[in-house]
Parts: sequence; C-alpha cells; structure tokens
Amino acid sequence: MKFTAEQIAQALNGKVEGDKMAEVSTLAKIEEGGKGALCFLSNPKYTHYLYSTKASVVIVNNGFVAEKKYSTTLIRVRNAYAAFAAVLELYQKSRPSPQGISSMAVIAESAKLGKNVFIDAFVVIGENVVVGDNTQIFSNAAISNNVSLGTDCIINSGVKVYEDCIIGAHCTIHSGAIVGADGFGFAPQDSKDYKKIPQIGNVILEDRVEIGANTTIDRATMGSTIIRKGVKIDNLIQIAHNVEIGENTVIAAQTGISGSTKIGKNCMIGGQVGIVGHLVIADGVMIAAQSGVGKSITEENSIVEGSPAFGIRNYQRSYVHFRRLDSLVKRVNELERNSKSK
Amino acid sequence: MKFTAEQIAQALNGKVEGDKMAEVSTLAKIEEGGKGALCFLSNPKYTHYLYSTKASVVIVNNGFVAEKKYSTTLIRVRNAYAAFAAVLELYQKSRPSPQGISSMAVIAESAKLGKNVFIDAFVVIGENVVVGDNTQIFSNAAISNNVSLGTDCIINSGVKVYEDCIIGAHCTIHSGAIVGADGFGFAPQDSKDYKKIPQIGNVILEDRVEIGANTTIDRATMGSTIIRKGVKIDNLIQIAHNVEIGENTVIAAQTGISGSTKIGKNCMIGGQVGIVGHLVIADGVMIAAQSGVGKSITEENSIVEGSPAFGIRNYQRSYVHFRRLDSLVKRVNELERNSKSK
Amino acid sequence: MKFTAEQIAQALNGKVEGDKMAEVSTLAKIEEGGKGALCFLSNPKYTHYLYSTKASVVIVNNGFVAEKKYSTTLIRVRNAYAAFAAVLELYQKSRPSPQGISSMAVIAESAKLGKNVFIDAFVVIGENVVVGDNTQIFSNAAISNNVSLGTDCIINSGVKVYEDCIIGAHCTIHSGAIVGADGFGFAPQDSKDYKKIPQIGNVILEDRVEIGANTTIDRATMGSTIIRKGVKIDNLIQIAHNVEIGENTVIAAQTGISGSTKIGKNCMIGGQVGIVGHLVIADGVMIAAQSGVGKSITEENSIVEGSPAFGIRNYQRSYVHFRRLDSLVKRVNELERNSKSK
Repeated sequence: MKFTAEQIAQALNGKVEGDKMAEVSTLAKIEEGGKGALCFLSNPKYTHYLYSTKASVVIVNNGFVAEKKYSTTLIRVRNAYAAFAAVLELYQKSRPSPQGISSMAVIAESAKLGKNVFIDAFVVIGENVVVGDNTQIFSNAAISNNVSLGTDCIINSGVKVYEDCIIGAHCTIHSGAIVGADGFGFAPQDSKDYKKIPQIGNVILEDRVEIGANTTIDRATMGSTIIRKGVKIDNLIQIAHNVEIGENTVIAAQTGISGSTKIGKNCMIGGQVGIVGHLVIADGVMIAAQSGVGKSITEENSIVEGSPAFGIRNYQRSYVHFRRLDSLVKRVNELERNSKSK
Repeated sequence: MKFTAEQIAQALNGKVEGDKMAEVSTLAKIEEGGKGALCFLSNPKYTHYLYSTKASVVIVNNGFVAEKKYSTTLIRVRNAYAAFAAVLELYQKSRPSPQGISSMAVIAESAKLGKNVFIDAFVVIGENVVVGDNTQIFSNAAISNNVSLGTDCIINSGVKVYEDCIIGAHCTIHSGAIVGADGFGFAPQDSKDYKKIPQIGNVILEDRVEIGANTTIDRATMGSTIIRKGVKIDNLIQIAHNVEIGENTVIAAQTGISGSTKIGKNCMIGGQVGIVGHLVIADGVMIAAQSGVGKSITEENSIVEGSPAFGIRNYQRSYVHFRRLDSLVKRVNELERNSKSK
Repeated sequence: MKFTAEQIAQALNGKVEGDKMAEVSTLAKIEEGGKGALCFLSNPKYTHYLYSTKASVVIVNNGFVAEKKYSTTLIRVRNAYAAFAAVLELYQKSRPSPQGISSMAVIAESAKLGKNVFIDAFVVIGENVVVGDNTQIFSNAAISNNVSLGTDCIINSGVKVYEDCIIGAHCTIHSGAIVGADGFGFAPQDSKDYKKIPQIGNVILEDRVEIGANTTIDRATMGSTIIRKGVKIDNLIQIAHNVEIGENTVIAAQTGISGSTKIGKNCMIGGQVGIVGHLVIADGVMIAAQSGVGKSITEENSIVEGSPAFGIRNYQRSYVHFRRLDSLVKRVNELERNSKSK
C-alpha cells in the first residue's frame, strides 16, 4: 500500500505544500518517522521535530507557521490530530477481520447469533445469550446465561461477562475485563463472621462504551450497575455494585469507585482516584490523579485534588506550603523566641 | 413465583402491618421498587423513600416509626437488613445450579473429583488435584497440579490456581483472580541485574474465604501465604508472598499488602490502602481508604489514616489545617511584620 | 532426596561448622524450619531465630558471630542469601517440566514452533506466530497473530498477548497479564463524545523480563511500548501506551505509568505509585510507595516521595510537621493573642 501526498490530501480535504508525488507506505510518530512515513504534528511541544524529521509527509494544522527550514512535504488540514486519527482508522479497517464460528467454541442451543459474527476457539456462550450482528468474541471469553451483546462489539480474549448482563452496540471490552462479578456485600454477624448478601442484579453497558484490560465492573445487589453511552474506562479500574457513570465520562487507569456512587456525564477522572460509596458527582467534574473523594461534588465542572479532595487550586496552594512546612515551623519558633525575649 | 406479605412474614418471623394479601413477585431497592416488589428499609438515609414508594411490601426494623403517610404494606422484623439478605439467599438458591462434567474439560487421570461437582468447558485440572463435593468450576479455569479444592466452592471463569495451593470449603473465587503466582522476589546482582528467587511455597485459603475478581495472591517463597477463615477480599487486590490475613478480616478493592506482613483478625481495610512488608497489624484495626501503612500497628482496634498512616482523628485534624495552610502562612507573615515593626 | 551438610557445603563452596553428616530433605524459613530442614540466615532481624531453631542446617554469612548457644549445624558462605537462592533454584529445576503439544490447542498452520516447546490445552496460537525453543505456554493463553516469543519463556495460564507484540528470551509472564491491549487514546469531539484513536503499534519485551499476574501493558499508538532487558514488573501494574522502561528497573505492585513516559534504567519504583504521562525519569531513581510523580526527574539516583513527589527527606520532614499541624496552629494562635495584648 503506497499513497502519494496528493492522494492523502484529497482524502483529508487538505492542501499539499511541497512534493505532491511524495510517497508514504507507513504511519509513524514525528520523532520516529523515516523515509516513506506519514506523520502528524499537532502538539506544539513536538514542533521542533519537524525541522529534522526524515518522514516523507507530515500533516499539520492550517495555521502552522514554520520558523526554520525543513525537508518534508506538508499537508495542511483544519485539525491535524483528527485527520491523522482518520488515517489510523482507515489503516486499521484495511486489516483483515476475523470471520466465522470456531468448532472449538461451546455455544448453547438457545443462544441467538446475529449475522457476520466471529466466535473464536474456547469461547463459551451460555443459554439464551444474544449476540448482535458483526460482533467479534475472541478466544477463552465466557458469555454467561441470558447475556445480551449488541451489534459491532469486540469482546477480547479472556473477557468474562456474568449472567444477565446487557452490553450495548459498538462496545469494546479488552482482555481480562470482568463484567458482572458479585458486588462486595457482606452482613456482619454477631459471631464477627460475615454473611454474603447475594448479588442478584446485573451490569448494563450502553452503546459505545470501552472497557480496559483487567477492569472489573461488579453486578448490582439489586437493579443495575450502569455505564452510560460513550463512557471510556481504562485498565485495572474497579467499578463497584450499583454505581452509575454518566455519558461520555472518561476514567483513567486504576481508579476505584465504591458502591452506589453516581458519577455525572462528561466527567474526567484521573488515574488511581478513589471515590467513596453512595456519593453523587456532578456533570463535568474533573478529579486529579490519586485523589480521594469523600463527599458528593455538587458544583458542575469543578476540579478537585487531594485525599480527601477539595478545590484543585486550594490543594496546590496548600501543597506548596506543605513542601515548605519545615521553614514555616522555624519561623514560628523564631517568633516565639522573639515574643519571649520581649 | 408469587408470595403474599403474610407468607413472607411467617418465613421471616415478622409481623405484617397493612394488607396481608399484598402480593410480591420481585425484589428491588426501595428507591426503585414498583408494584409487586418486595423491598427493605434499614439505613435511615433511605427512610424518605418509604413515603413515596410504590413497592407492594417493605421489610422494616421493629423499632421503625413512620413520620409521614405511606401506602405500602410493612413487615416488621428484628433486623430488616438480615431478613432481606435471607430473602435474597432464598431467591438465589431457587435458581438452577449447573451440573455435570464437560467433555471439553481436560482432567488428569490422577485427579479426584467429589460428588456432584460441576466442571465446565475448557477447564484444565492437573495431576493429583482434589475437588470437593458440590464444588463448581466454570469455564477456562485452570487448577494446577496438586491443588486441593474443598467442598461447596465456586471457582468462576478464568480463575487460575497455581500448583500446590490449598483452598478450603465454601470458598468463592471470582473471575480472573490468580492464586499462587510467584512472589516478587529477586536478588540484586553486582551487574545491577536481578536474579529470580524461586518461589517454592504455596497459598492456603481456609474455609469461607471470598476472593474478588482479578485479585492476585502470590505463593510464598517458602511456607505459605495464608488467608484465614471467613476473610473477604474485594477485586483487584494484591496480596504478596508470605502474607497472613487473620480470620474475618475484610479488605476493600485495590488494596495492596506487601510481603510477609501479618494482618490480625476482624480488621477492616479500606480501598487502595498500601501496607509495607514485614509488618504486624493487630486484631480489629481499621485502616481508612488510600492510607499507606509503614509501621506495625500494635494497638488493637485502632483506626488509622494517611500516607504514612497515623491515628485517624489526628490525621483529620491535621488535614483540616492542611486545607487552610495558606491562611496560616499569611498569619505567620503578619506576625513577622508586626514583630519587626515593634 | 536427602543431602548431608557436607555435600551442601561442597556445592556452595562453604564450610561446615557442626555435624557434617546432618541430613536435610526440605527447605524452610528459619522461623519455621524443623528437623530435616535446610534454612538460611541473612537479615540480622532474624538472627534470634538461630538460637532456637530446630532446623538441621542453617546457611550463614562468613562473618556471622553467634552471641548465644544454638543446636543447629552451620554452613558458612560468602553470601548466605545468594547461596540459598542457588539451592532454591536447584530444587525448582529438579521438578519435572511439562512437555509436548496438547491436541486441545488451536495452532495456526503458519505458526513456527521451536524445539522442546510445551503448549497446553486451550491455548490459541495465531497466524505467523513464532515460539522459541523450550518456551512453555500454559492453558487458556492466547498468542495472537504475528507475535514472536523468544526462547525459554514461561507464559502462564490465561495470559493474552495481542497481535504484533515481540517477547524476548527468558521472559516469564504470570497468569492474567495482558500484553498489547489498546492504549487509552480518544479524541474529544465537539459533541462531547470521544472518538477512538486506533492503536496500531505494539509492545516489545526484551530479554529476561518478568511480568506479574494481571498486569496490563498497552500497545503503542504507533511505534512500540518498550520494556528493556531485565525489567521486573510486579502484579496489577498498568503500563500505558508508548511508555519505555529502562534496563533492570524494578516496579512493585499496583503502580501505574501513564502514556509516553520514559523511565531510566536501574530505577526502583514502589507499590501504588502513579507517574504522569510524557515525563522522563533519570537512571537509578527511587520512588517511594504511593507517590505521585508529576514532573520529570532529571537527577540520577534521586529518591522522591509524596503526591506530588519531591525529595524524600524533605517530604518526610514536612510530613512530621503535618502530623503536628494542630500544635503549630495553636502556637500561632497564641502568638497572635500575645501580639494583640501587647
């Protein structure tokens, strides 16, 4: 597969500056691209690579102004990042898609498989499962009884979906993610032993949800743990029973959300954040990495940090002082000495 | 399945207040229950839902006093939460249990299977494995050589138990949990390279242990990593080599316990806690979420917070001041100004 | 298998003190060893066990000087820890190694298998995969298209290696680890929805890398996520796309490293550490557990703590003051009272 700068510019609705016939056959980051590579430049931090890159073609924003010489051919577009993402997507779609149903899968007779599904070896599909059209299920995944999978999903190797869960359309679940394991509910007994509270609810993922590798989303005690449309969840995240996460919220790796907490839509939650149970987090809230949220956040679009978390500016101001606490203590010591000597 | 309020009250040793013939056919949370639903009310925070619920029957504590009108039928019991848990359990037991041994499992001839075991497709059972009566092993689980599984266990899909480990009776292990992988032991070499220390011990889970999804419990270097009776461990938790966890201790998600640390019984450990290696934590200790424990805790029932952790009240007091550090610094600035001007 | 103290001393190039004919048949920790056990003593904290141990033989450092009576036989060596590790290794190598290729594995015809490989039941090996000599792949592992596995690797049960990844020689990957899942890359859209950025790169593990259970290492957006020679990564760790980790760096459990960050060689990173994306961490840096690194660390061999992290001594000094903040505030209150009363 070779394309000229001109062909690419046409596909992206962009404009070539340089050699229209420059040929590319691979995609690369601008700091790594060599001859034959197509790169992009969007983040100004990386601009200096443009002046030395040996990549054949670089996609840049319309407004880009070079301050030094360079030898590559440019394609100017409205949004270099989005344009390059479109190229990546084309590239990925050009790869062959797996097809067919393995004879080494175990599929219940009552399961209903859509058109054009792929079911790999060593997959188990339980009773009454519904698999939507074009959905791909990779090896060693287990889809338990009564689960419904929407159309155009990708269920990677080793994913487990416990019974009764509902997965929407265009969802991707990465390897090792566990959807629908029991919530962590135990009733303390007089004997100091704990008695398990059966967890009879389920998990619902709405459309266009992406779940990272080895993430765990527990089923509700009753009712549903709900992940709304367009939510993106990174790796190794814990979502406890009866949590609800609003549309298009994004959560970075290793964050944990305790039971029955309800997160708004369009939130951005950093990595390794912990959120206590039974809280409500307003829409558009941003939570800095490693924060611990112990109270509901009612103000939309607020930004918090700390453990427990509070307003990020105040946290950062306090932390600056924390770093210099030794000096503050010495100043107080000095004031006390002065005070006594007077 | 339909039951009347009277039937349920009899089963729970409770007393109906309202329509004895009110019928229920489903279980729900009080904030979600509609006609035909049986709910419970235990946490006072949820009392206001009682006055508007359309649930047909609500289980409440004997001492509950309504302060407004409501339209549902009540069942009064000694402990509403426990009574409802009993109902959930009955509900769960009424579901059909999987049976039999899949022809698509690979089971070593030397393995000994108890009565009434369930072994799903694509399970591997190694040499000399013992599986207790009524134990269920779901798809794609791997039980390695010389492992012993007690009676009435549930080993969910994709669980891996490495060789020589011992699992007691009535244990539940959720999907993706890894029991008995190598402890993280490496000896630094003069070359700055590390040499692996073979990990030849095992993991012992005593009876009634529950292990959450994708949790990892490493085998001992020598001897055993031991999880005592009744311990409940949530998802994505790391238990390092040679750790011992005392009876009925409960650990929330994403906590990590480093090598050779010994946790007492009846402890409660919050989420995302980290505990350094080679420590001893006394019985009944509570550790707040996200804390980092760097020293042994010798006082039973103490409660700690912070990283490093200390007494929770002191931590919270310090943290209140931390939040206002900017104001404290300004006050010290002012004092210094005054001091100089005098 | 029984050995005398003398035989062991010869093998370890050590010197017996006591009964040369003392026999051992098992290995144990010094605090647990009984008759017939071979133990070692290296950490001075454990010295007191020597005076009461019933172990038959204990390996000690040449310089060890007993301060009380003891009844065991000693073997003196240059480095007791290293000598014992060598014994453990011999013990482990004496265990039978699994052999052969299961008829219940699915192996693409285009895959190339080396000599003496072990492939367990329910393993899937994709197109064009290369498996090096002596490599063992345990049950339910999935090795996707175009993956290359070096010689002498151990791929434990349930490991998933996504397509195009490259694994060096002498690597061990523990159960449930996921190598090569998509990096977490999404472009925000005007609609507040996110568009997935295809992740077309791969992961490269160089030689002698060990990856812990349920750890996730994401593939690069473009190019490679690279784990250099000799790196040891514990359980439940998140390595994001395009990260690079330098030779012989060691990372403890539950740490997360964000996208495109480059860690130096010979670093030691504690548990539950978080590192922001696009940073550079110098060689030999040590990061205390639970720290959050928000800026590049340019000074080699520096040691940091805190969230955000700074010099460990300064952090610890500040934290001592943080613990006593209440007292500091009271002192400032007092100063203010005095100041006003003057």
